[in-house]
Amino acid sequence: MTAMGDELEQTERTTVRRLAERGRFDRATANAVIDEAYIAHVGFVVDGEPRVLPMTYGRIGESLYLHGAVGNAMLRASTDAEVCVTITLLDGLVLARSAFHHSMNYRSVVLVGRAVRVDDDAEKERAFDAIVDHVLPGRGAEARAANPSESRKTLVLRLAIEEGSAKVRAGGPVDDDEDLDLDVWAGVIPLAVVPGPPEQDPDQRLRGLTSSEPERARLSR
Amino acid sequence: MTAMGDELEQTERTTVRRLAERGRFDRATANAVIDEAYIAHVGFVVDGEPRVLPMTYGRIGESLYLHGAVGNAMLRASTDAEVCVTITLLDGLVLARSAFHHSMNYRSVVLVGRAVRVDDDAEKERAFDAIVDHVLPGRGAEARAANPSESRKTLVLRLAIEEGSAKVRAGGPVDDDEDLDLDVWAGVIPLAVVPGPPEQDPDQRLRGLTSSEPERARLSR
Repeated sequence: MTAMGDELEQTERTTVRRLAERGRFDRATANAVIDEAYIAHVGFVVDGEPRVLPMTYGRIGESLYLHGAVGNAMLRASTDAEVCVTITLLDGLVLARSAFHHSMNYRSVVLVGRAVRVDDDAEKERAFDAIVDHVLPGRGAEARAANPSESRKTLVLRLAIEEGSAKVRAGGPVDDDEDLDLDVWAGVIPLAVVPGPPEQDPDQRLRGLTSSEPERARLSR
Repeated sequence: MTAMGDELEQTERTTVRRLAERGRFDRATANAVIDEAYIAHVGFVVDGEPRVLPMTYGRIGESLYLHGAVGNAMLRASTDAEVCVTITLLDGLVLARSAFHHSMNYRSVVLVGRAVRVDDDAEKERAFDAIVDHVLPGRGAEARAANPSESRKTLVLRLAIEEGSAKVRAGGPVDDDEDLDLDVWAGVIPLAVVPGPPEQDPDQRLRGLTSSEPERARLSR
């Protein structure tokens, strides 16, 4: 069941069925999506019913880390259980001449597998760093690290990035031939997540602290 | 089990447990999130395991519509089945002085319920319009409407916006008192989904078509 090398493992449950030509199974594509997005939608089953919650995460190599409070009901339900972690980047709105062929440009990753609790303190520390660095590169080294009490209060789950698939749509609308002369504007509206100017906690200025705000380059994905 | 009036129905499965003070149950908050976001992450159960896929959607009043090809395995698995539809807007990165208090500003909605297939042709048409208008207001009236063959090829599911909750985090970092003098930049990096300049399908220019591109105001959420 272990994925070897540069490819994700393609199984019955991760085969891209719908528009299969959009499927990607190389780790490079999947990792690029994982690293660029900020949040994952994590699916788990409670009493036979689906639940989906948005969560932050971090990646170290072929491991994805989730975390939350030890009392977090959802994380507890996901521990040693099958989860589905879906991460989506929306790149554009695709406006076709026909309503039917409207679409969106996107890059998404779907990972499935068993989420296991991380008990090793050193791995937990690395996971915390990865999760904070995922928000802003280098931030893990700047912020005050988690102390033992904070670490005890935090449940960390690891999911192997192993069984899954990516899916990518790019490019313009694909209309039917008989619609091509319709005088309805067709094309793509690109979308991007753009950071605004950093808003410093006013309390820091009152205290006369001089740490500098994150440079724009660090914020670009 | 019907939610009355301006509030979503709060049940055992939709109670906001973690950081309950962030929970919102008014329809106005939930609808604002639903209308502003472009995609939903739809969770369903296959063979007892969770699956989560990104989907577009439309809203009419207290109904949420999903759609896809009739052969779409996921939509078929969701028909007359319990689903969880989660919609998330990411508003900012919250950088605290401590790694532990890093957070994100977001607005999210979690809806649960049974997705039912829409068989009525008139309701299907309204759903198509709502889904296309959700991408770009007014677009449903501009684009060539679905013909009977396209309508037959499309499976539409309706989920009542009834049992669910919204969750909102806003504002700056909340650090522990003993960390407030640490000289680590703290604050919020606002994030927004921003549309770029429309990219017209080059084929339209070759054909000399003159329909005008969507104005920026129509693209703002």
